[in-house]
Amino acid sequence: MSSFRTVGRKIVAIGRNFADHAKELGNAVPSKPMLFLKPTSSYAANGKTIEIPSQCDVHHEVELGVVIGQTARRVSEADAMKHVAGYTLAIDMTARDLQNAAKKAGHPWSVAKGFDDFTPITDMVSAETIKDPHNVRLWLKINGETKQDGTTQDFIFGIPRLISHVSQIMTLEEGDVILTGTPKGVGPVRPGDHLEAAIESEGEQVLHGEWNVAGRHVDAEL
Amino acid sequence: MSSFRTVGRKIVAIGRNFADHAKELGNAVPSKPMLFLKPTSSYAANGKTIEIPSQCDVHHEVELGVVIGQTARRVSEADAMKHVAGYTLAIDMTARDLQNAAKKAGHPWSVAKGFDDFTPITDMVSAETIKDPHNVRLWLKINGETKQDGTTQDFIFGIPRLISHVSQIMTLEEGDVILTGTPKGVGPVRPGDHLEAAIESEGEQVLHGEWNVAGRHVDAEL
Ligand SMILES: [Mg+2]
Ligand SMILES: [Mg+2]
Ligand SMILES: [Mg+2]
Repeated sequence: MSSFRTVGRKIVAIGRNFADHAKELGNAVPSKPMLFLKPTSSYAANGKTIEIPSQCDVHHEVELGVVIGQTARRVSEADAMKHVAGYTLAIDMTARDLQNAAKKAGHPWSVAKGFDDFTPITDMVSAETIKDPHNVRLWLKINGETKQDGTTQDFIFGIPRLISHVSQIMTLEEGDVILTGTPKGVGPVRPGDHLEAAIESEGEQVLHGEWNVAGRHVDAEL
Repeated sequence: MSSFRTVGRKIVAIGRNFADHAKELGNAVPSKPMLFLKPTSSYAANGKTIEIPSQCDVHHEVELGVVIGQTARRVSEADAMKHVAGYTLAIDMTARDLQNAAKKAGHPWSVAKGFDDFTPITDMVSAETIKDPHNVRLWLKINGETKQDGTTQDFIFGIPRLISHVSQIMTLEEGDVILTGTPKGVGPVRPGDHLEAAIESEGEQVLHGEWNVAGRHVDAEL
């Protein structure tokens, strides 16, 4: 599944899976996973210059991605990890102004989360590379300055629960990705910025990505 | 692109594209297309028995689907129709209770719209088969009784506008489908029901599908 970016058909992103991040956006801590879809057309491989809508307030959310290796349909928590091919590092880019307007109006989040280049993502490492995915450090820097630095020890819902929950609703297929949520420290990304992010397991950097940021004017009423 | 159900990677659905349907749900008529994503894992081919969550209030929304034939990235309305491979007939199944709760809470619509089998869909007819996609009749019957009967003459936003708008935000790829919205008459679907729907162009039935409905208990907090 190293080709997940071209094979996979959906990205299921989890919102508010770290209590400190839920709090910073003024949200209640959820009793069940909150999920939304991002289009695979939003993938931007490591090293690409990403373009963000210049008329929006775009935020970074660094996240651990779980790559599905084989179909998961209504699986139990006990069986869930068998369906994991590996892990990736992603940034769930978000037009926060559009998301806030959508929330207020009761509208879908798909535009706020779905622009081209809104999912910068690295290659995959195999499941064996990360012994305990519930104990990895993930950080993000902008222009060399640390903005997010968290640990998946602070997950509200662990990976087996996420896979089981999602798979009861919609079948997960080979190459699909679950983005597991972001720790606190989200904030603005601007054209000209340099993004760098990493995931560390047992003190070793196992995933690392860098992206330069450019702006583009989106020729549509948003 | 007759294989769009296996090749395509996203479904972009348009909400409130018929004024009479917007009104029946108490929504304002939008000034721009409202869009949301459905997962391709929700496809259910013609003739399949679909399973709906027995603990939800599930509604039918019959829609004309536009199948993308070649990549559409930031295309103009004038160029948009060149990217259309053909048309399909789909039902945008919706857990209305979950959607209403999501709207109220400012949450995403992805669960309400994304269950397995929530996009019953026929095969594709080529673009040439439908001379004027802005003048087709679409209807849906439950157990032989007509529930929806509308015409795409009542679209708020035509297909070139939808393709252009979406493609400014996210790139449309080969096999992707745009669901163009539903006319009035949406209502409940229950286990045991028989769904039948069709699209008529110039007095001829060009697309037709039938699905039996079963219930399943979703083993997750929704
Ligand atoms: Mg996120
Ligand atoms: Mg998708
Ligand atoms: Mg619809």
